[in-house]
Order: sequence, then C-alpha cells, then structure tokens
Amino acid sequence: MNILFGGDYNPEQWSQEVWNKDMEMFRAASVDTVTLNVFAWGLLQKNEEEYDFSALDETVRRHARAGHHIIMGTSTSTVPAWLSRQHPEVLRSDYRGVRKKFGKRHNFCPNSPVYRRYAGALVQRLAARYKNERAIVYWHIGNEFEGECYCENCEKAFRVWLKEKYGTIEALNAAWNTAFWSHTFYDFDEIVAPSELADGEAGLAFMSAIKLDYARFNSDSQLACYKAERDIIKAEIPDAKCTTNLMGTCRTMDYFRWAKEMDIVSWDCYPGYRAPWSETAMTHDLMRGLKDAPFLLMEQAPSQQNWQAYNTLKQPGEIRAQSYQSIAHGSDAVLFFQMRQSVGGCEKFHSALISHSGRSDTRVFRELSALGAELKMLGDKTVGATTRGQAAIVFDWDSYQALEMSIGPSRDLRYVPEIWRFYDALYRRHIPVDFIPADASADTLAAYPLVLCPVLYMVKGDTAANLTAYVRQGGTLVTGYMSGMADGNDKIYTGGYPGPLREVCGLWLDERDALPPDESRKLSVGGKDDYTCGLLCDLICPTGAEVKARYGSGFYAGTAAVTVNRYGQGQAWYFGTKPDDAAFDRLVDEVVQGSGVQPPVDEPTKLEITCREKDGKRFWFVLNFTTEPQPVPQALSGLPDLLSGKITGENTQLPPYGVLLLEE
Amino acid sequence: MNILFGGDYNPEQWSQEVWNKDMEMFRAASVDTVTLNVFAWGLLQKNEEEYDFSALDETVRRHARAGHHIIMGTSTSTVPAWLSRQHPEVLRSDYRGVRKKFGKRHNFCPNSPVYRRYAGALVQRLAARYKNERAIVYWHIGNEFEGECYCENCEKAFRVWLKEKYGTIEALNAAWNTAFWSHTFYDFDEIVAPSELADGEAGLAFMSAIKLDYARFNSDSQLACYKAERDIIKAEIPDAKCTTNLMGTCRTMDYFRWAKEMDIVSWDCYPGYRAPWSETAMTHDLMRGLKDAPFLLMEQAPSQQNWQAYNTLKQPGEIRAQSYQSIAHGSDAVLFFQMRQSVGGCEKFHSALISHSGRSDTRVFRELSALGAELKMLGDKTVGATTRGQAAIVFDWDSYQALEMSIGPSRDLRYVPEIWRFYDALYRRHIPVDFIPADASADTLAAYPLVLCPVLYMVKGDTAANLTAYVRQGGTLVTGYMSGMADGNDKIYTGGYPGPLREVCGLWLDERDALPPDESRKLSVGGKDDYTCGLLCDLICPTGAEVKARYGSGFYAGTAAVTVNRYGQGQAWYFGTKPDDAAFDRLVDEVVQGSGVQPPVDEPTKLEITCREKDGKRFWFVLNFTTEPQPVPQALSGLPDLLSGKITGENTQLPPYGVLLLEE
Amino acid sequence: MNILFGGDYNPEQWSQEVWNKDMEMFRAASVDTVTLNVFAWGLLQKNEEEYDFSALDETVRRHARAGHHIIMGTSTSTVPAWLSRQHPEVLRSDYRGVRKKFGKRHNFCPNSPVYRRYAGALVQRLAARYKNERAIVYWHIGNEFEGECYCENCEKAFRVWLKEKYGTIEALNAAWNTAFWSHTFYDFDEIVAPSELADGEAGLAFMSAIKLDYARFNSDSQLACYKAERDIIKAEIPDAKCTTNLMGTCRTMDYFRWAKEMDIVSWDCYPGYRAPWSETAMTHDLMRGLKDAPFLLMEQAPSQQNWQAYNTLKQPGEIRAQSYQSIAHGSDAVLFFQMRQSVGGCEKFHSALISHSGRSDTRVFRELSALGAELKMLGDKTVGATTRGQAAIVFDWDSYQALEMSIGPSRDLRYVPEIWRFYDALYRRHIPVDFIPADASADTLAAYPLVLCPVLYMVKGDTAANLTAYVRQGGTLVTGYMSGMADGNDKIYTGGYPGPLREVCGLWLDERDALPPDESRKLSVGGKDDYTCGLLCDLICPTGAEVKARYGSGFYAGTAAVTVNRYGQGQAWYFGTKPDDAAFDRLVDEVVQGSGVQPPVDEPTKLEITCREKDGKRFWFVLNFTTEPQPVPQALSGLPDLLSGKITGENTQLPPYGVLLLEE
Repeated sequence: MNILFGGDYNPEQWSQEVWNKDMEMFRAASVDTVTLNVFAWGLLQKNEEEYDFSALDETVRRHARAGHHIIMGTSTSTVPAWLSRQHPEVLRSDYRGVRKKFGKRHNFCPNSPVYRRYAGALVQRLAARYKNERAIVYWHIGNEFEGECYCENCEKAFRVWLKEKYGTIEALNAAWNTAFWSHTFYDFDEIVAPSELADGEAGLAFMSAIKLDYARFNSDSQLACYKAERDIIKAEIPDAKCTTNLMGTCRTMDYFRWAKEMDIVSWDCYPGYRAPWSETAMTHDLMRGLKDAPFLLMEQAPSQQNWQAYNTLKQPGEIRAQSYQSIAHGSDAVLFFQMRQSVGGCEKFHSALISHSGRSDTRVFRELSALGAELKMLGDKTVGATTRGQAAIVFDWDSYQALEMSIGPSRDLRYVPEIWRFYDALYRRHIPVDFIPADASADTLAAYPLVLCPVLYMVKGDTAANLTAYVRQGGTLVTGYMSGMADGNDKIYTGGYPGPLREVCGLWLDERDALPPDESRKLSVGGKDDYTCGLLCDLICPTGAEVKARYGSGFYAGTAAVTVNRYGQGQAWYFGTKPDDAAFDRLVDEVVQGSGVQPPVDEPTKLEITCREKDGKRFWFVLNFTTEPQPVPQALSGLPDLLSGKITGENTQLPPYGVLLLEE
Repeated sequence: MNILFGGDYNPEQWSQEVWNKDMEMFRAASVDTVTLNVFAWGLLQKNEEEYDFSALDETVRRHARAGHHIIMGTSTSTVPAWLSRQHPEVLRSDYRGVRKKFGKRHNFCPNSPVYRRYAGALVQRLAARYKNERAIVYWHIGNEFEGECYCENCEKAFRVWLKEKYGTIEALNAAWNTAFWSHTFYDFDEIVAPSELADGEAGLAFMSAIKLDYARFNSDSQLACYKAERDIIKAEIPDAKCTTNLMGTCRTMDYFRWAKEMDIVSWDCYPGYRAPWSETAMTHDLMRGLKDAPFLLMEQAPSQQNWQAYNTLKQPGEIRAQSYQSIAHGSDAVLFFQMRQSVGGCEKFHSALISHSGRSDTRVFRELSALGAELKMLGDKTVGATTRGQAAIVFDWDSYQALEMSIGPSRDLRYVPEIWRFYDALYRRHIPVDFIPADASADTLAAYPLVLCPVLYMVKGDTAANLTAYVRQGGTLVTGYMSGMADGNDKIYTGGYPGPLREVCGLWLDERDALPPDESRKLSVGGKDDYTCGLLCDLICPTGAEVKARYGSGFYAGTAAVTVNRYGQGQAWYFGTKPDDAAFDRLVDEVVQGSGVQPPVDEPTKLEITCREKDGKRFWFVLNFTTEPQPVPQALSGLPDLLSGKITGENTQLPPYGVLLLEE
Repeated sequence: MNILFGGDYNPEQWSQEVWNKDMEMFRAASVDTVTLNVFAWGLLQKNEEEYDFSALDETVRRHARAGHHIIMGTSTSTVPAWLSRQHPEVLRSDYRGVRKKFGKRHNFCPNSPVYRRYAGALVQRLAARYKNERAIVYWHIGNEFEGECYCENCEKAFRVWLKEKYGTIEALNAAWNTAFWSHTFYDFDEIVAPSELADGEAGLAFMSAIKLDYARFNSDSQLACYKAERDIIKAEIPDAKCTTNLMGTCRTMDYFRWAKEMDIVSWDCYPGYRAPWSETAMTHDLMRGLKDAPFLLMEQAPSQQNWQAYNTLKQPGEIRAQSYQSIAHGSDAVLFFQMRQSVGGCEKFHSALISHSGRSDTRVFRELSALGAELKMLGDKTVGATTRGQAAIVFDWDSYQALEMSIGPSRDLRYVPEIWRFYDALYRRHIPVDFIPADASADTLAAYPLVLCPVLYMVKGDTAANLTAYVRQGGTLVTGYMSGMADGNDKIYTGGYPGPLREVCGLWLDERDALPPDESRKLSVGGKDDYTCGLLCDLICPTGAEVKARYGSGFYAGTAAVTVNRYGQGQAWYFGTKPDDAAFDRLVDEVVQGSGVQPPVDEPTKLEITCREKDGKRFWFVLNFTTEPQPVPQALSGLPDLLSGKITGENTQLPPYGVLLLEE
C-alpha cells in the first residue's frame, strides 16, 4: 500500500447527487482512502430488533468499486437516542454523579452491561456482514476514547477492579495510606467513586491514591470496550487489523497500555493555534513510540478547526509541510477530518477537502489535490520505514496523572510542557528521539546513548534498578525535580528525594522551593553568573555528584542547582530547577556532548531534519517551519529530492513550509 | 396624556405614615404615574382559597384620588412560598434539570399547568376588581420575562411544540441534520431538553438546531404566559392596554414576536457603567422599532444601580439628559425604578426618588422634581410624535442566538457589538435609524435609502429575495461577514458564502480567517495602506463586485476585503472584515454618500441630534453627552427651545448634559 | 507550664520502628507537647459495636512516659467510611442540596442526630478511658469547624431555630422585610435553606436576611456539636480544659460566640504567601481578643505549606521570628502542623519537623530544635502574661457576613482588608491594639483612649448608645463608610446614613459613589491638594462635624470626605472614603495625636515592638520583619535580652528575622 490519503467521510449526511459529485472530486484529488461509519449507530439500528445496513452496503460498494481503501468504523462511540430513552444506564454520569441525558457524543458508560451488549451485537453484525470486503484495510473501533463516568455501575466495577488489584481491604488501606484523614475502609463496598461529591474537587485529589486508581480503572474500562469489539471482529475476521484514533498526550488514557491491544497506532493531530512545531513533532514521536512502529495519522484539519478560541486558516503550503512532518516522524497515512464539510452540528465550521461551497477551485482543494498526487507519485517508498532514535525520553502516564492532580508544590507545574522542553532542545539539535515507557527493559535502555526522564514522579517496579544499571553500564541519564518521588500509589519514598534515584544521581534533598511566576533566582553556570531559573528550586546536597550550576540568589545562593554524577561507566544529570533558555541550552549542550550522541547534521540550521530508513535506504525529510528561507545543510547536498526530482545543491534555499524528501 | 412621570412604587413595604409622606413628596415632584402591584402575589393570596385585596384597594383609591395614572402589575412573575411548597412544579428547573426551591423572583415554570391555573385565577380577580378603575392606564403583565426552565413539563411541552412545527419525526431529522453525531430520532419522545446534561455546555450548542428551537420554544412559552393573562384582562376590560417591561437587547426573548402581542412596548433602561450613549440610543430605537411606534420607558435608575460591579452615581444633569434621550428616541414616559428605596432585599442599594434618608432636600429628589415640573410644563406636545429613520438596521434574534452559541470561528464575535458599530457610525453622522425585523416586507425596505444587515447569519423565508429586490430597485444594502450563512435551522447554505446573498453582493467565498485579539492585518482603502483590520477576514472572490478595500498583509494580501456591487439600480456593500476606526469611518462615509441619505445636520458636531414629528411640527432634541460644552449647529439656530423658552442663537453653547428641545 | 512546643503527630500512619526514632528526635528537638488523635475515628471504631483503643493507649503511654504534654483530639471532625455507608445522613449536603458521599474531611452534618449520637458515644469512651491521664493538658474537640450543610435535617433545624428567635411568622416577615419580591411566609415550614437552588447565588444574597440567619444558624449548629462534646468530657473530667482550633478571620463562624464556650482559644496560623506581617499580628490580636486572654498557637507550618498556589520555603530564621511574634501577641504555645510529614494524602507536601527524608541534619529540624531549646531555656517567664491595648478595634462577624454578601455598592469592598488597614496604621506606630466585639460594654470601651469601628455595617442593641456615650465621655471614635447602615436583619436605617451613628458623627448623607478600581478622586487634606482617594466616596453633609478632608475632583469636588465631630468631651472621626497611603497616614497621625494614645516608642522604627506584662515585669518583643538590619530604638537600650543574655546597647542592629526579648 501507498501512503493512505483521504479521511473521514459521512455520506449519510448527503444525497445521492452529492455522493456522485464527491466521487468525482475524490478522484481529482487522488483520494484513495475513506474512513466510514464512525457516527452512524442511530441510522444503522432503529430499535432493539431492526437494523438497516442497506445504505452502508451501498456506500461500501461504491468506494470498493472506486478502488478506495476503507477504514471501517464501528459507530459505537455514540449511543442512539432510542437506546438512551429505553435504557438510561447506557449513558454516563457526570463528575457529580448525575446521569446524563441523550446528547453530544462519546456518551456511553463503559461499564454498562446494556451498552456492552448492544454495542457487541452491532459490531458482530458489522463484522459478519463485511468480513469478505477486501477494501477494508483497518477496523476503526469507537472514536477518541476519552472522558469519565461516575455512575453506580462504574462504582461497582471499580470495587471489583480494586479487589482484583489489592486482594484484601487491609492491603488496600496500606497501599492507599488511608490512616490519613480517617479514611480507613473495612469493606470494599465502603469505597465510592472519587467524584466531586466525594474525594474530588476541581481536578485536585484529596486522596490521590483513590483518584489515581480510579483514573487507571477508567482507562482500563474503556480499553475493555475496545478489546471486546476487537475480539468480536477478530473472531469473524482473523486477519482484521484493528485500531482506534488516539489523541496524542491525552492525560486520561494510558496509551502504552492501549497500544498493546492495537494492531497499529492511529491518532488525531490537531495542534492548538500557535503551538510550536516541535510539539507536534514530539507527539508524532510519542505515538510512534507506543508500539515502536509506524502509525497512521488518522485525522488532521485541511485548514481551520472550529473549536479553538480563534480558528485561524492554515497558510499556503502549511498543510503539505504538516503532512510530511507526520510521515517524517513515522506516519504511513495522511488522512483528514473531513472529506466534505457538514452543514449542521457543532463541527460545521471545521474545514474539509470539499468545503460548504462544494467547489473544486478552492485553495484547500487545490493544495490537497496536489498533495494527493505527490503522495501517489511517491508510492510505497517510505511506507513501513523505520526510525531509530539516538535519545529516548520516558513518557509516563502515571506520573502525568499524579503530578497534575497534586495539591502542591506549584500550581504551574504541568507534565507535558516539562517533557516538551527537553524534547525541543534535542529537536533543535536534530537528534532523533524515541519515547519509551517507564517500564522499558534494561535492553531497551541500553540501545540509547542518552535517556531522559524529566519529572518522572512515580518510580515503580524495576524502573529505578533499570535506570541505575543503564548508567552503570555507560549510559547518560537526565532527570530532575519531582522525579523519584512516589511509589505507584503516590506514597512518597522516605529517606530523601529523589528516592530510588538517589544513588545513581549521587545526591539527596528534602527542600524544594516553589516560586511564584513573577519570581526567579539567579543561576551560575560555568562561571557565568547572570542566568536565571524558576518554577521549582531543589536544594541539592551532593553525595558525589559534581555541581554544574549553582543558585546565585535566594537564601540558598551557592547551593547546587544542577549536577552530574559519574556513576559506573556513565553519568546521571539532575536538573534541580528550571533554567532560563540560555542556561538550559548551555547545559543541554554539555549533556549531549558527554553522552556520545551524534546529531546527523553538524551545521547549525533552523530546518527540521528527520530520517526514516527502509531496505537500507535513508529518507531525509527536510522541512522549513520558519518564516524565512533557510539554506539546506551541506551534509545533505547532492542527494535527489523525491518530490521535485532534482538533486539538492550546495546553495539550495528552502522556502517557508518548503519540503525536501532526500533519498540516500 | 402628558409624558408619564413617576415609576415603581411598593407601598406594601411601608406603613400608612410613610404613604402619607410619600403622597406629599410625589406632589412636590410632579409625579403623575405609579406602577403598582408588581411583586405582591404573596400578600394578595395566602393560600388556595384566601385572597386579600384590601390593601391594594386602599392603595389604588389613594392614587386615583391624587389624580395619578396607575400602571397595574399582575404580580405573577414571582410565585408565593406557600404555592411553591404545595406544588413544587410551579418552580423552574435549572440548566442541570434540578427543580429549584422557593426563592428569588421570576421563579415560575412557564409550562406548569398549576402555575398557569393559579396565575390566571389571580389575574381574573384583579381584572374583575379593578375593571372600572379609570386611573389604570396600562396593565403591566408579569415582570421582565426572562430565563429558562428545563423541567419535565417543559420537556413534554417542547415535544408538542416540535410536533406542531415539524409534523413528522423525519422532517425534524432532516431539518436538524441529525445524521451528524448519530442524533437520529425515531420518536418525538426520544427528544430531551438541551440542558447541560444533554446537548448543552457552557452556553455552547453541540446541536445548535435543537438548542435554537428550545430557545424559541422558551420564548414562546413565556409569551404564552403573557398572552394568557392579557386575554383574561381583555375579556373583562376590552379596552385595556397591556404591556410588559422588556429588556432591550436581551438575547433569550424574540421581542419582534412579543411586540405583536403588546398594545404598547415598554422597557427597562439600565446602561452598564461606561456604556457609550449611542448604545442606549440604539436600544431605544430598537424598542421603538418593535412596533414602529412610541414606547414607554418603564424603568430607569434615578442615580446609582446596585447590581453593577461598581455602582457609580449619576452626575448632576445626567438623569435629565438620559430622560430626554429616551423621549427623543420615542418614549412617551419617563418612569423610574423606584419611587422609594427598599430597606431590605437585594435591591436596597438601588437609588430612588425618595432615598433611605426620606428627605426631599437630596440632590436626586431635587433633580427629579425639576424634571417632573419641566415635563409637566411640556404637556403633551411630543406625546405620540413619530420618528422616521433614513436608514434601517435589521435586528434578528435568530441570528443573535445562533451566532452566540456557535462553536467557531471566533470566540470574540458577539452580535450586539456588531450591530452597534454600524449604528454608532450613523449616530455620529446624525442619521436617524429604524430597526426592522429580518422578515420586513419589500415595502418596508423600499422606504429607506439605506438598509444595513451586519452579521445577518440566518436568512430565511423571503428575506434574501426582499433584500435583493430592494437593491435592484435602487436601495443601498450593507452586509458582511457571517451573513447569509444558514437557514432557520442553522444549516449552512452550500455553494459558497454568503449563500442567498451571493448574487446581490456579487461575490463568493469559502475561507474566513479568525484572528486572535492581538493580531491584525493591514488594510488598504483608496490607496492608503496603513489601515488595519481584524476579528474575521473573509477571503472574497468578487464576481462583479468592485473592491473598496484589500488586505495588505497575511497570506491573502491583495485579496478583496470590502466590496460594493452595483446591482440593478442599487448597490450592495460587503464588509468582509472588521476595519479599524479610521478605515471604517472612511468606508461608511462612502456608503452614506452613495446611498442618498441626507443627514439632517451638515456641520460636524459631537452633539446628539434627533427629531420627532407630530402634527406637522418637528421637535429637535439636542443633547450633549460629551464632557465639554459644544456649539449648537447653525442649522438649528433661530428655533425656540421649549425647555428654556429662549430662541437658540448662532453661538449657543450647550454644556455637558445640556438639553435643547427645539420646535420647528 | 512552659511555652508548649511540639504539635500534631499521627503515629497511626507509622510503624513502631518509626515511633522509636521519632521519640528520639523529639527529645533532640526539645518537643514537650504532642497533639494526638485528631483524625482517627476510622481506626478507633470499625463498626457500630467495635472500638479499638489499644493503639491509642499505647501512644498515650509512650508520650506520657516521655514527659510530653498531650493535647487530646476527639477525632469527630471526619466520619468513618463505614458510618457514611450505613447512615448517609451523617454526611453534609452541598450548596445545591446534594448529599455528599464519603470523602475528604470535616464531612459531618452538624444537625444529623445519627452523627451526634455516634460522635457522643466516641467522646464518652475517650473521656472515660483517659480521665486519669495527667499528661493530657487540653482536649481538642473536632478540628477547624467550618463549612455549611444544606440538607433536610439542617433545613428542619433551621425552622426550629427561627421559631425560637422570632416566635411568630408575622414577626419573621417583618424582620426579614419579606414584602420585597413577594417573599411573605405564612408558615415556618414554607422556609427553605438559602442554597443555590433558593435564594443563594455565587455567594451573593438575594434576601440577605435569610442568608444571614442561615449563616448564624450554621455557626450555632457547629458550636452545638462542640458544646455537646465538651459537656460529655466535663461530665467525666470536671477540670478538663477544652478548646478547638479556630481559623483567624474565618468568616463563617462567629468566634466571639464560640470563645465563650472555650476554656482557652487556640488557632491555626497559616499566612498566605506574601501576606504582610502586620496581618498575622492582627489575627493574633483578634484571637487574643476573643477571650481577652492568652491563647495557644495550635498549628503553623515549619516551612512550606502545600495548598497555596506556590508553596514557598520559609527562610532561615523566619519560623523563629514568626513563633516569637505569636508569643508577643499572646500565645503561650508554639505548636506545629506537623511532627512527621505524611507520605500519602493531600497534605504530603506540607512541611514537618521530621521531613520525608527522616533526617535530623535538615535545615528545618535544626532551626526547630534550636527554637525548642531556646523556649525551654525561657521557661514559664512569659506564660500567662497579659497585654493591654491602647486602642480597640471592633470586629463584628455580623457586619463581615452582611457586607460580603451585599449586592452593591462595590464588588471590591471586603471586610478584613478594611479592618487591617486601620490595624496596620496603628501597628506601624507601635500602638498596642485589642479587638473587641460590637456588643462591648460601656465599661470596656471606656478603658481605651481610642476605639475604631471601620465598616461597622450592622449596629444592633446598645452598640450605638455605647459608642455615643463613649465619645460623650471623652473617647475618640473612628468610623466611616458603610457603618451604621443596618439593623441585625440587614434592614437599612432610614433618616440618612450612618443611621444611629449620625448624632455622634455630626453629619448625614444619602449618596455614596462607588468607583471602579481604575478611578480615583483627588483629595485635599490640610491645604494639600494632591492626595487621592477611591473605592467609595460618601457625599457628607456635616451637621456640626469639622471637615478634615474634601474631595478635589468628581462632581462633588469641595464636598466633605473625612470629618471629625467634637461631641461632649470626645470626638468622632468619619472616613467617608478610602484615602491613599499618604493622606491616610496624615489623617491617622491626627487621630492618634488627638486621642491621647501614647505609643510606647517615640522614635520612628520599622521594627515590630510589642509588650506583654506579668508579675509587674514587662517583656518587650522586638522583631525585624524587614529585609535590612534595623537599629533598636534607644528607649529600649540597656535592657537584658532574655534570648542572647546580653544587654541591648545603643547601637544594636537587629538583623532580618532577628528577635529580642527584653525584660524590663
């Protein structure tokens, strides 16, 4: 297969006349893939007994006949109105425990037996009906699993989940530290969902152990819905490839757990307006890392979104560059939400290949058509190509959850921006990054000269041992404030921070200042005294670590702020504070130089440069996300650009949003 | 009748001794009108059987004897505590569907049969009892109808309302575009009120068609309450004049529909602190436009309000100027909330003719007394006088609702400020403006050289045809971004924006950029390049329209931003963006000059100048809302000022808050 | 007893091994007092029948053996999960009337008969069991009583409370001014709790009389819980000393009423980050004023808190200075939350004597140990010492409540900042201040040359008469805007503001401007015209008062803004506006000079200087809360410093956070 090109299409909202026009326009735009049947349950089934697949049959036939690949939705993310009326329990209850009424989407309770039964019945019929349809290349289960339910069915299921996890109520009390605030339980049935009426409040956790387990339980519950459908499909179609569209750094679902159950990762990429391009690159790399494999870019907006505060248009060339960025970081698909713009419903102002005007002489249609033709020309050259990071960043959903529901030390500490800051530093140095889970094996770690685990708040299982061994055997580890703090139940490790990472870091501390946003401390690095730092300031007591930066103000002026510990054959860096950009860059330079990482490009350049490999060939993706033309590095000159067919010269300038795909 | 002078009076909160003092003070202040019985249900009826009208009898007698006009409230806007206890269903349910408990005001469910029965019984008794009281000049039904209810009675009534509107569930599905997000209904009983638990969320609409219909249903439900009372009153008193106090640009009630059921429009005028005076003028004109007739200023604050964040005092002369402004724009009454300041309850810090001090030597009492005497002296000279706009602005509650619940393209787009900006431009040019509904007839339109319909998002019925014919026959039309977008169910017109207004505007577009508030684009008008624009930027493709302004930056630099299309005998302007003040003024000048509108005053002046006509006479209201003295235009010199009795000279300077009422 | 040193300790969260280590560390730190059993109900009782006091027995024995004083908690502030499950009525209902589920703390409904029965049974057992334990020096009932419940039990109890207060429904209607907005009640059972579903909304009061009474009822309900436990304890242990930890200026509990039922006041001192030190001093003085007696500082943070937005570390010396400040203002204890830092639960990042590191070589442990040793050395020298204010400030919880729920005149008016501004002015002049209730007797008032009652909104009972008599007999009174406004039911006094304070102030007014925060008026004081003022501007009409400041801008320029009235032998100042700092200081200087108050220190100094007296000795506490060294005033030189043992010299400089305790 080539790179899939096309996206979400909702013929059920249109007449036959429009379908015919659409098929012509798809051809003109080189569309080869459509995602169908994502929100159609209400049309497919009108009551307990009656199903009507005739329209879907016709749609599938039409696209198969046109040679399109089909990504087949299961339509189970949104329950029909009639089912909600008949069985209100299929709907979720909100954070106050109030059962919702029919509306919106993603409205099912994941632990409703009735929902599970009806969803299963529908999927069973879909699988049986289309088992022989060769046009179907992927099964797309549900849609953007997210949200939480606090109903009684969930509460009961939570108790079962807890019983399985802890065995006895005594074990649970110990794990949850319930002696705090008189929370001791004598029976699992005394435990209630941590809603706003119980231990929740405005997103904060009064008993974080409960809330963390509820978050895990909720992720598992929705994953169970996914798995149930997948198993039904695979029972009918053993070689079916199943996926669901993930949402990047979405906090509520532990995607490393999800990816294990998916045949291929797919995700929906909607950068916020003014989001840095390195953040999008990071999320692609995270999605690739979930299975350490290529993925599908399932959705992106052809131009403007509708749900931002200010929905800006994409600029000419921007969607092309964005699409190649996704391929560069591991996608084997360039799919869009949506093929044709809805005329009603809350997404009516979201852009589409075919806009409300219905015309093909629009800017967006022209840009997408040109892109479609270009991808067709590329064929399968890059499909399935691999990526090999030189650095690995640990992304840990448990730490993410725990940090963001913590009451203290600083309201401004957010997980993803902390990860992004290190990622961005490597991105600007053209160092390819892989994302790995906190339970990555020693072997996995050993493959990287550099491993970073910023704000790795929770350290469980073998993680500390593996990281320690990694350094001992020569690796370079980077960690820092709020790392090594807690066990899997958010119980703080005693003996001094960073807990089980103390030894490898060669230091300990028990004081951590939290600075208001309008305050900073001076920071001295390498004899230069006029740097600053902020957010958090760890008061580090080195027990072997070398001091790389010291505070220059505050009562702890002179205290170590950033250190490196030579340990075994390797070294462990500890960032006890958030340095300003200049200090950060200087320190990261030293980290990188000491780690043995070799950036593929030596020359300084503001271009994004990424590489995928396949069959011994290297494909260099060179992208200009700046607003000025940028010279292509000499190291990449002389290579053929697969897009233009030209050889890249020494003086080639890449314009804004320009793209080169060099084959080496 | 003279201009009514007086206002809301609550003798039920006071003793006989106070009544006597009040009557004296009313006499001293030339009060000739009191609004009674607005919040007295709890006192008039103490249980299912017992009514007690003795106090009201006495009050009515007292005021009739004093020669006062009475505006008689029906007291039905606030249900009594005993009724709430006995029949909780009379109370509203909130946005979450939770039944409220007794409290506040405007607390009745408009679709509660029990409420309707009890309210009707009370009004029946009031009408029968006071049918022969000649002092009663108006019946004031309820109070400030507003708010929404989400109870089961409303939900059921909504289904009935929908059945009447759409006939079949298939027609409803088509109209609502329910194929989006699996919202197909098979039975009206599957439809639920779009509360926060269903399709609502923080004021936004996920299925705007549902939410729009619920808003219309709610407006109709409350209007039905009004009509039920009106019909009871008129059955007893055929020549009774009925009204209720409207609230200007209140979004939730479609006042054009309400006005059809009212004998005279009345409204409550409470400008926000620092609101521009042209906004108040605009709202008066809108209220006059509801029936194209004079109205009653039913409530205004003598000085400070209490429910603003910062309740500033009115300055000396300010309330006089404000009162004359209301007359200038069509009011035949100058009424106040309130005659005597309450000592308890949340409005206790709202100003009154008689303050907490109870004294007549206060500034407010003196100013109001002087105003009362002046109005008495004026007599009925201006009462019933008409106003004739040279420009008409379309105000459309459906567009207002739909725009403000839209998810995209820009959070900052608000309906009233868009209307106001054009109104203000005409106001500053002294061009009299009428407000007309979107379903104004061709004849109505033809009466104006200039018709403006900014952000006329919904275009239904004959509106597009009428506007097009209006231009063809020589009219000048102004419209722009977010106009001509959707049908009456918020379904977007296909074929290119602005939908059915494409032909008359001579252009089409399908891209509209939404700019964050800190961003703007350059705008070039008439060869001058340094203007700017923002909010939204339509990318216009003229198909005949002449370009009057082009973008000077952004990727669409050079693209048309503002155009005018010569069409038939007339022309249609399209504002594709929000120009800065200088560019806007320049463009509006050209619009006005091309339209044939003749401002009554040629000379530039910062005074507000308005005209009413009666019996062949013109009454010029000249008001100074600036902080400096302003010269009176020469065109108005030589006319007698009815207030001072002097002839206005060539060099007359009007001080701040100064007022002239010139008779021509 | 010495000054108690130690604090909250939760051995139930730890193992025996840790207990043993803790006992050693307590000894090293000179800890002599522990607060036990505050949150242990869930452990003490596992179901209706089974109690288990074995662990607590052991704990009590251990500490008694170590010679520790024990402050014994009753554990009743947080109901166990099993009890919540069995009797959901023991939990509170929230502001929407929804019953909560098990979680958090302080979760009991104060009017639940079941809660009262179970709490009583527990306390009965505790009292009986430990009646002979001499180590117990205080009984600590509940914890930080706070919050509100809106359940049906509370609603019913509220009606009973109202019946007792008003006798008849007619009396209630009159008191509550229910004729406003048709709120007339015919039966107590028609009255509902003023929740968000009734007369409440976002903290504002639509019928403030109802909401005020509910607030008083709630305070009384929780106080009844306190009293019930106290009575049980005293029945067993007649000489038990009972307290509960108050929370400074907490609005919801009327602490003057509470203090009457407490043997000693104790409170928890957690200054917000960047709170001025004079605010902390003020709250200490308020707490001392509750019983006009020494109090216990029950809780403070050794270093950082966890529930601030940014939890900054305390600087070296800061906690010592803060502790001496509490002693200086009347505390006979220096207790901390907490002895050992929890590893789980939402307070895990709150600092402790023993941190997560468990080490004794931490900065905090060292500072606290040094402080412990110092206090031990001081012995009982200052314990029980008295303080005598030269000025008294009236602190009135009723005015506090009423002002902050008022709808108008200004959103920015807050009670405590108004009190603090006058307090701070006296603090900077080293004038000792006592806080007194609004019902302070004439004798109490007469003891002070200066009495201040800023924003004394409610004036009830003999207050006006007492204040008037106080001035007549020679006292100096300071009051001002929003004073003398309302009776005990928030009914405004008629006849002109400030109501019953008109005569003594020699003025009246009925206009009060409320300025937005970005607006001010010029103010002229003593011939100097360039001062400013803001917030509120009373338009004062003097009827005898002398004008001390006039507005210099606004339409009321020239009007009196600040006045003083010579009345009898004394004088009454009225601040009709909020002057800027310079004008305020100038006016306060004049107030102080005219009052005969003699600051103990003549020289200007930025040090905090406070005095306690005992057995004829004076103890001068001299504290430096600035960031620079400050010279000690000459007046205090030559005295021995009890902490350093040295005689303070003429040139002694006190460093930042430096402390002197001079004996005279």
